[in-house]
Amino acid sequence: MADAPERALATPAPTQTDATEARHQARMARKKAVIDQKIAAAKTERGVVLVHTGPGKGKSTAAFGLLARALGHGLRAVVVQFVKGRSDTGEEAFFRRQANVTWVVSGEGFTWETQSRARDVAAAEAGWHAAETALADPTVGLVVLDELNIVLKYRYLPLERVLTALANRPAMQHVVITGRGAPPELLAAADTVTEMRLVKHAFQAGVAAMPGVEF
Amino acid sequence: MADAPERALATPAPTQTDATEARHQARMARKKAVIDQKIAAAKTERGVVLVHTGPGKGKSTAAFGLLARALGHGLRAVVVQFVKGRSDTGEEAFFRRQANVTWVVSGEGFTWETQSRARDVAAAEAGWHAAETALADPTVGLVVLDELNIVLKYRYLPLERVLTALANRPAMQHVVITGRGAPPELLAAADTVTEMRLVKHAFQAGVAAMPGVEF
Repeated sequence: MADAPERALATPAPTQTDATEARHQARMARKKAVIDQKIAAAKTERGVVLVHTGPGKGKSTAAFGLLARALGHGLRAVVVQFVKGRSDTGEEAFFRRQANVTWVVSGEGFTWETQSRARDVAAAEAGWHAAETALADPTVGLVVLDELNIVLKYRYLPLERVLTALANRPAMQHVVITGRGAPPELLAAADTVTEMRLVKHAFQAGVAAMPGVEF
Repeated sequence: MADAPERALATPAPTQTDATEARHQARMARKKAVIDQKIAAAKTERGVVLVHTGPGKGKSTAAFGLLARALGHGLRAVVVQFVKGRSDTGEEAFFRRQANVTWVVSGEGFTWETQSRARDVAAAEAGWHAAETALADPTVGLVVLDELNIVLKYRYLPLERVLTALANRPAMQHVVITGRGAPPELLAAADTVTEMRLVKHAFQAGVAAMPGVEF
């Protein structure tokens, strides 16, 4: 009650909600202008090469998410899995049920499971044959080359063959390449590169590989 | 022909291929032992919370890949999209056709598009209502909370409500939360955290948002 006269004298201030809303609106209008300008500047329509690398989780799953996205737009897709740890993955079961996807598995398992370089090289060659066919087919809108970076890292395939096939592919075709340790020449050739950084992983806390999450 | 006698005298050396194969095999056997031990140590089976954050591409797509993976294992899933830039995404078209997925869109668009904090808060509340229902339902195996981090960053929802619902969810339920700027308290509560680091993006080189890749 003591400060009532002062209150009465004061010019009615805008409520906090109004002020917050106005500030928010001004800030967002500035942000929208910047973003709209950037969008207007990006006009080229063509196929892109994406690389998902780094030690964190999400490299292959982001490729499978892109696959779902592409299928939703009616694109045809080919997936080649170069190094495959297990044969009971959710993604394979799921996408094999879908139309417009060809799913090829070339590897027998992680390279530390086969323990034979000769067998790994033969598997990589077989996978690359399927990949090259897809990369020459203009009816294929998206090619997923899962764990190709591992194959390149162990030199199971010559990098030059991969770079040549990417450079000569149909103009509107998108390609996603996943796996740790992508070679610098591939990063240079790619349009979009994300490094999945490992902040933490449930595995480190003793959680088993859960179906639906890890495979 | 000149070095023919020397050739004939030399003890037949193992071929380079044999030596390479032996080295490879030894290295991979050591690697397998380390990995097998780690796998044996990770025994806990439970639902996990994954966070995809950082400025790079792949946060939402990795969540959609996980969704495909979970559906492949027969899990039921609920997706809540908190901030939605457009209504013509491939992922929405694709997953709305699938069994076992409930797809909820709560936001009207990016926050710089609506330019109204009050509307954004109302949309966030509506989305959170759907999320809370899913997070209390033991028949839901995976909950995708797409762009929830943006909602938390702008304080459209109290973080405490989110942390409480995560802590009290069914034991076997997995949750994926995406968006830039995940709050530290959420990272602490998560089991698996990946930061998507932007190495480069086609957008920076003037490539338009291509259907099947960017939406």
